[in-house]
Amino acid sequence: MTATARMTGQFWQQYQKIVEEHVIPYQWQALTDQLEDTEPSHAIENFRLAAGLSEGVYYGMVFQDSDVYKWLESVAYSLRNHPDAALEARADEVITLLGQAQEADGYLNTYYQVKAGLEQRWTNVRDNHELYCGGHLIEAAVAYFEVTGKRAFLTIAEKFADYVDTIFGPEAGKIKGYPGHEEIELALVRLYLVTKNEKYLNLATFFVNERGQQPLFFNEEAEKAGRNAQSWWHGDHEYSQAHVPIREQKEAVGHAVRAVYFYSAVADIARLQHDDSLKQAVETLWENVVQHKLFINGGIGASAWGEAFAANDDLPNDTTYNETCASVGLAFWAKRMLALEPKGTYGDVLENAIYNGSLCGMDLKGERFLYVNPLEINGPNACQRHDHRHVTPKRQKWFNCACCPPNLARLIGGIGDYFVTETKAGVYVNLYGASETTVTLGGQAVKLTQETLYPWQGAIQITVTTETPVTGKLAFRLPAWSQENFRLLVNGVAASYQNEAGFLALTRTWNDGDVVALTFDMTPRKVFANSRITEDLGKVAITRGPLVYAAEEKDNGPHLGTLWVTAGEIVATENGELLPHAVYLTVPGKQLRSLDQATYTTQAPTLEETSITLLPYFMWGNRGEGELRVWLNQLFC
Amino acid sequence: MTATARMTGQFWQQYQKIVEEHVIPYQWQALTDQLEDTEPSHAIENFRLAAGLSEGVYYGMVFQDSDVYKWLESVAYSLRNHPDAALEARADEVITLLGQAQEADGYLNTYYQVKAGLEQRWTNVRDNHELYCGGHLIEAAVAYFEVTGKRAFLTIAEKFADYVDTIFGPEAGKIKGYPGHEEIELALVRLYLVTKNEKYLNLATFFVNERGQQPLFFNEEAEKAGRNAQSWWHGDHEYSQAHVPIREQKEAVGHAVRAVYFYSAVADIARLQHDDSLKQAVETLWENVVQHKLFINGGIGASAWGEAFAANDDLPNDTTYNETCASVGLAFWAKRMLALEPKGTYGDVLENAIYNGSLCGMDLKGERFLYVNPLEINGPNACQRHDHRHVTPKRQKWFNCACCPPNLARLIGGIGDYFVTETKAGVYVNLYGASETTVTLGGQAVKLTQETLYPWQGAIQITVTTETPVTGKLAFRLPAWSQENFRLLVNGVAASYQNEAGFLALTRTWNDGDVVALTFDMTPRKVFANSRITEDLGKVAITRGPLVYAAEEKDNGPHLGTLWVTAGEIVATENGELLPHAVYLTVPGKQLRSLDQATYTTQAPTLEETSITLLPYFMWGNRGEGELRVWLNQLFC
Repeated sequence: MTATARMTGQFWQQYQKIVEEHVIPYQWQALTDQLEDTEPSHAIENFRLAAGLSEGVYYGMVFQDSDVYKWLESVAYSLRNHPDAALEARADEVITLLGQAQEADGYLNTYYQVKAGLEQRWTNVRDNHELYCGGHLIEAAVAYFEVTGKRAFLTIAEKFADYVDTIFGPEAGKIKGYPGHEEIELALVRLYLVTKNEKYLNLATFFVNERGQQPLFFNEEAEKAGRNAQSWWHGDHEYSQAHVPIREQKEAVGHAVRAVYFYSAVADIARLQHDDSLKQAVETLWENVVQHKLFINGGIGASAWGEAFAANDDLPNDTTYNETCASVGLAFWAKRMLALEPKGTYGDVLENAIYNGSLCGMDLKGERFLYVNPLEINGPNACQRHDHRHVTPKRQKWFNCACCPPNLARLIGGIGDYFVTETKAGVYVNLYGASETTVTLGGQAVKLTQETLYPWQGAIQITVTTETPVTGKLAFRLPAWSQENFRLLVNGVAASYQNEAGFLALTRTWNDGDVVALTFDMTPRKVFANSRITEDLGKVAITRGPLVYAAEEKDNGPHLGTLWVTAGEIVATENGELLPHAVYLTVPGKQLRSLDQATYTTQAPTLEETSITLLPYFMWGNRGEGELRVWLNQLFC
Repeated sequence: MTATARMTGQFWQQYQKIVEEHVIPYQWQALTDQLEDTEPSHAIENFRLAAGLSEGVYYGMVFQDSDVYKWLESVAYSLRNHPDAALEARADEVITLLGQAQEADGYLNTYYQVKAGLEQRWTNVRDNHELYCGGHLIEAAVAYFEVTGKRAFLTIAEKFADYVDTIFGPEAGKIKGYPGHEEIELALVRLYLVTKNEKYLNLATFFVNERGQQPLFFNEEAEKAGRNAQSWWHGDHEYSQAHVPIREQKEAVGHAVRAVYFYSAVADIARLQHDDSLKQAVETLWENVVQHKLFINGGIGASAWGEAFAANDDLPNDTTYNETCASVGLAFWAKRMLALEPKGTYGDVLENAIYNGSLCGMDLKGERFLYVNPLEINGPNACQRHDHRHVTPKRQKWFNCACCPPNLARLIGGIGDYFVTETKAGVYVNLYGASETTVTLGGQAVKLTQETLYPWQGAIQITVTTETPVTGKLAFRLPAWSQENFRLLVNGVAASYQNEAGFLALTRTWNDGDVVALTFDMTPRKVFANSRITEDLGKVAITRGPLVYAAEEKDNGPHLGTLWVTAGEIVATENGELLPHAVYLTVPGKQLRSLDQATYTTQAPTLEETSITLLPYFMWGNRGEGELRVWLNQLFC
């Protein structure tokens, strides 16, 4: 278990406050069907039905249970950040309900218990999410135990995992299978880390290694059940990353959320089992994503069809899916890559996925959410297109497939778990933000206090608090965007450091009150995509520090496609209309104007001087509906 | 019936030769299921089944019959261009078969006769194409009669039309309905024009005026048959232009082919019934299409979903549908708008729809066809997209929905019918190309002989042949692309003319041997789309004379999106590799190159001098598979 940072600054405290005061109560209303003009969730009621405490019929998706588990996981982090007796009592009631709903043998899935019938369980592991839900059950139980120290929930999870271990595995009589939607693999690793019970690590390892082996389990399972073995997805099992074994997978394919949940477990298992071939496999997939499948904002999954990865370099800004859950999952994966091997690039992607890929999924009140995160919205007519129907130009109240809001809630609530990575070699600081983290350095507890207005400002002061002087390595991620220009002082003087794969490493004896002062370059940057990305040719995106910026109709008027960025200084201005300390940008540009009304004309359009206002992409859509554009036209002269 | 031009020059003679020697025989093989590795058509066999000459079951779409009718119509034009006894004998055999298949009451539709059962006829006029097929039956019969003078086929058509007139109409006991797919309306007008039987004109007028009236026929029909009245298309009947009456329709909507077939009939009826409100209605729809729904190449129907018009100004070059049939239908409509009122702009669209919107639907051997006509293809990865799956980067052998190839064949075969419009006021020459046309001027027959290498060259010499001097108006379309620069000489000297709505009108006494010499401006032009068309912002298209040009991977290498057009002279060069006298263009440009491999970088790309080779868009895809692009990036400086 890695050290957890406690947020002490405005930025993350406000987000955690939003989660605590709005998202968690709002989601509780949803789970208990108290939201008006929103499809009922029925998730809690399904458990009451399974527990025999209520009469009625099952309602919802096959994975409805997971909404309750994700809510409980969010509650756990919330209680860690701000103890709340009433909320904890409510969670304990739900946990009691889960115990009542759980079968004697440990099975727990209300869809099969209430609707499909227990005799049908494990007959469609590919599509029906029993192991996926179980994974979220385990993750929530682990988090709740870590925060509260209470065992009741963990016991339910162990009982479920022990039962699953009797059903799945290489041994004769067990199902040599794996879930259609990965999730339980990384959950079992978490359960192992907190219980130290190797059975769980081994079961996770089995799921990972068995996946994609011939004969393909999904085909055999379907034939056995008399279903068509063909997947609706191009007829193979790329959709669930089950087409070939993990060590033969060279390209990230299929459903993006499933993929990154899977890769997260692969990274964990490579580390915990000291498996170099698995490490190479996950590094290859990481490289493919970063080189060919990653949007500038840390979004992944360009294809609405299948909520999936598209082909290499096919990154359409207007029709992309970029599910919020996928960027959240990318953060999960990046965190585990850092644990596997501390590299600055993993931290860069982690930071990008959090700030630019995930936070955009929720409005600044915590009441509206985005499932799909386009980088370009071209006005009402384009939104009418059938191939744009997945794009919602404004955030929604709740989804009947409610995966994203709770996923975002657990990321924000648990953000403190992403700040540092502890290894035998030393302590690596991945993320910056006002916070306190107690780490283990040189065998003893050391507190790192970050004081900063990051992500708005680039100056970070880190104070070391230690009872006695301690010798060891503290390493600080040097963001890719600050490579050329940064400053590192220790107690006010330039210190010698090693650049270890993108981390500024200081190995020395640390005394109480030592201060590390980092200054990163917050100059706005013009970023260009490689020419292999057709959709971004001739375009430029503006970033500042860790944040990707965007133009909105609200500031620039309609038809953002008529704007061209020109040479000249980009001016950064503090603008607190939506968030304290927020920084907006003003970019010199030109606006294209046609000189006549003809549909097609030989009269060249003019370009008139203008200036373009940008705000951080994650803040878009908080001031009414309108056009959006991250990649702006670049005037090459 | 307007005068028909006989093609005497290489361009159209070659196309008509392709149709006669390849397309018509090839389509005959298709209709008689002799094509290998192609889905059987079964169209002829369906008629044999209906005639009781064969045993078996119906196969094919509900509109399979129409393929046979369109083939017969193409044969008629082919026989007009080049008499062919064997082909005419084959056509007569098919016509005999149609007669044998026709019911005593005149009904003819093999889907209902063989499969659904006659008792079911007229129970789903919205979806099952009985009137659509009947329309093609009538069009083919009229054409065959006009060319051969034989009545047999016309008699079948009249018998069918007389029967339909007993079923549909305003009178009590008749169905107050209209077809889901328009076609019979314009066909009935053609039948009226050749038979002078007003019954057919009145039935067509009824279909046009009744369409969209409340209560909506499609809803009543569906309710009667116990079907869901809701259309799958946005839940209303815009899909078939039946949402409101024609005089209330202000925007072209729904299935593009249905729309332009409908509008064609509306234009005819406005003219023949002297109905000004109908004329205004069709003019309003024409304006909407030209202003907001027309691609630069005369393509229409931007939405693959529903093969339909998209919203105003939503003209995506890579995902557009632009069905070949839709541009062919636009030519049908434009021809009728010219008859309604001779305006140069109608002729401009006619010419565009023929050269740039329709001819691209067939390869230069007449063996492969395109249903969908993209203006941009971005390489294999983009083509993998689910929202691109309707785009075929190369032409296909045959479609099981085989509407486009025969439609193109009848357009090319009948191209002579589009060259001139005869009105009481005078003779209007719409199209240019080496040809002979005998028109009626001042009450007597006058032959107009065009000598030109058009569309490759802009010089056209038109010689008048008349037995005795005749006084009257000859008007020649001044193409929009030559407005600024053209020359008109009569017998070698500048002549005074009136510019009548885009036609250069010469009212005078014409003597035998008079020569009108027109010279149009074939300087390559840079064309810009209005800024309201987001997809074309910052882009430029190159045209020369009537032709729209395109870049292909074959000449320019892959990744056409990296090309930028710069200032400088565009050089036109004759290149006969695919077509004699064809002109290619060389455009000065620059090519974007990234300086590193990073996915995202602050290193701005470079633009390196290059030259871009373009060929006429209609000729693309004849030299192997590859990228395609009509709208090129424009460097503004």
